[in-house]
Amino acid sequence: MEMLDEVRHKGGKLHALRSFCGALVAPESDNNPWHYKFTWAPLNVVLAGQGTAQYLENGQPRYVPYNRLYSHVNRYEVAGYGAFEGYPNRDSMPYVDRYGVAGIDTFVRGTLRRDGYCAAWNALVQLGLTDHTLHLNHTNTYTYTDLLTSFLPATAKGANLRERLSNFLQLPTNDPSIERIAWLGFFDHEPIQIEQGTPANLLCDLLQRKWQLQVGDKDMIVMLHQIDYYLGDQLHRRISSMVLTGNDEEDTAIARTVGLPMAMMVKLVATGQLASLTGVHVPLMPEVYQPILRELAQYGIGFIENESVVES
Amino acid sequence: MEMLDEVRHKGGKLHALRSFCGALVAPESDNNPWHYKFTWAPLNVVLAGQGTAQYLENGQPRYVPYNRLYSHVNRYEVAGYGAFEGYPNRDSMPYVDRYGVAGIDTFVRGTLRRDGYCAAWNALVQLGLTDHTLHLNHTNTYTYTDLLTSFLPATAKGANLRERLSNFLQLPTNDPSIERIAWLGFFDHEPIQIEQGTPANLLCDLLQRKWQLQVGDKDMIVMLHQIDYYLGDQLHRRISSMVLTGNDEEDTAIARTVGLPMAMMVKLVATGQLASLTGVHVPLMPEVYQPILRELAQYGIGFIENESVVES
Repeated sequence: MEMLDEVRHKGGKLHALRSFCGALVAPESDNNPWHYKFTWAPLNVVLAGQGTAQYLENGQPRYVPYNRLYSHVNRYEVAGYGAFEGYPNRDSMPYVDRYGVAGIDTFVRGTLRRDGYCAAWNALVQLGLTDHTLHLNHTNTYTYTDLLTSFLPATAKGANLRERLSNFLQLPTNDPSIERIAWLGFFDHEPIQIEQGTPANLLCDLLQRKWQLQVGDKDMIVMLHQIDYYLGDQLHRRISSMVLTGNDEEDTAIARTVGLPMAMMVKLVATGQLASLTGVHVPLMPEVYQPILRELAQYGIGFIENESVVES
Repeated sequence: MEMLDEVRHKGGKLHALRSFCGALVAPESDNNPWHYKFTWAPLNVVLAGQGTAQYLENGQPRYVPYNRLYSHVNRYEVAGYGAFEGYPNRDSMPYVDRYGVAGIDTFVRGTLRRDGYCAAWNALVQLGLTDHTLHLNHTNTYTYTDLLTSFLPATAKGANLRERLSNFLQLPTNDPSIERIAWLGFFDHEPIQIEQGTPANLLCDLLQRKWQLQVGDKDMIVMLHQIDYYLGDQLHRRISSMVLTGNDEEDTAIARTVGLPMAMMVKLVATGQLASLTGVHVPLMPEVYQPILRELAQYGIGFIENESVVES
């Protein structure tokens, strides 16, 4: 919000706002091919994107159904942290008004993952393994290999399951997406440990074992905003990024970035500094975010900004 | 059920039961490229298959997610009526016990459509136009052309919407699926007439205008059962089909096939012929279906059976 205030203050005309965030694992604790570990409600990660995402692009509403969401990704670089991929997160539209940017041409809020995650996750989606409607019983009597086999169409031919999956996905047998699925145990008769549930429940239980933060593991929050605006005829791009690494598997970056602003807010209310604000608010007012952003900086939580002229 | 009784009676060992049904339009009233008109709850037709279908094939459970359901079709011929295509309908598994065929290798219940319907419907699914989660407002201020445009990814290039859609679907611009979508008005700025709703609601409203039975139109019910069984080492296939054509747009085949058995059942109860059956039942007992099938024959509703040796 502060960055938007600054753009307005110097007379810029907003063109695009792209706001992406990911709760990921820090590079020093990243030791799996998905480059992801859970730091947030696991089932929400498994079900993420079900439904249709909605955002604004060049003045047009854009709808992206679940079956295309994880192939609808853009690549983003964060200086010092390499490549990420972002996909639209649910319905961005209500935030156009909340952020006070009505009339903007392009507006999207999205989720960041490490490069390659989305292609492999898309394979699970296309297979149907993230389905949360089909209820399966006695699942502890079979394996993840059986589960994958039941989702593979008979038309997917091959000498073994890896070949059949590669054929289905039209990928080489050593494609990184195939390797990520292999790493989860789908080709190795990994037993299903829960007695019943949907495919999403079964996948979630597997991932909770595979993607668990280990003792000493550090998580990482990455937040990235791109604001494109015109100053006269010149299109400017301001990039603002925030990266925070956790201390260990309990004192996480996600806990800090979710908990500290709330605690600071409570302090503002308790010490009478927000006396003029009564009722229920989404905290997007300067008298809330300015003091909180200042205090967060003392905890090492701050944005790095960068501005360039895109075209003139 | 009668056919199953006969197979058992002669000592056959059941291998497969495939049971398909479609509520369609009669050939003489079929004047649209989808070869379909509504005779049943329209929104159910639009939402059909959302979730994951489940059936049994060669002893293995098979799961088919929505994103692949309409490309997971088999072709069936009905003598005198040409080609149909069938896809698995929801969860077939509970019917294995209900039909008393536990231990069967292949068991699927499914839905019949006319040849070509599923490929075109699959295009709508892949686009996202059957989504029932995204709520859109002020929809009467735009057109079905706008709606389709919002679902097409920016990567689908072309000089016009037909070309862009063809590019997205990787089909020639005159492919029958493209023609079916064109016939619905998606390229012609057909106005959206309802004020709000999901994409499925908007599609349903359009289809209710396009697929409405006209005065004098006749519907058609097609039911097809394939029973494969072994007599010794010989695999036999018994095919049983029932086709019923309605009289007009009100006295429909679907109304007769749904209503008459119920009326006959009420008569059986009211005249004390089912006195030994009390409580709530799924009516799969011989004392119910035998007299009803006999009475239905008087209304011209009966099955044609055909048996052949598949391999010996």
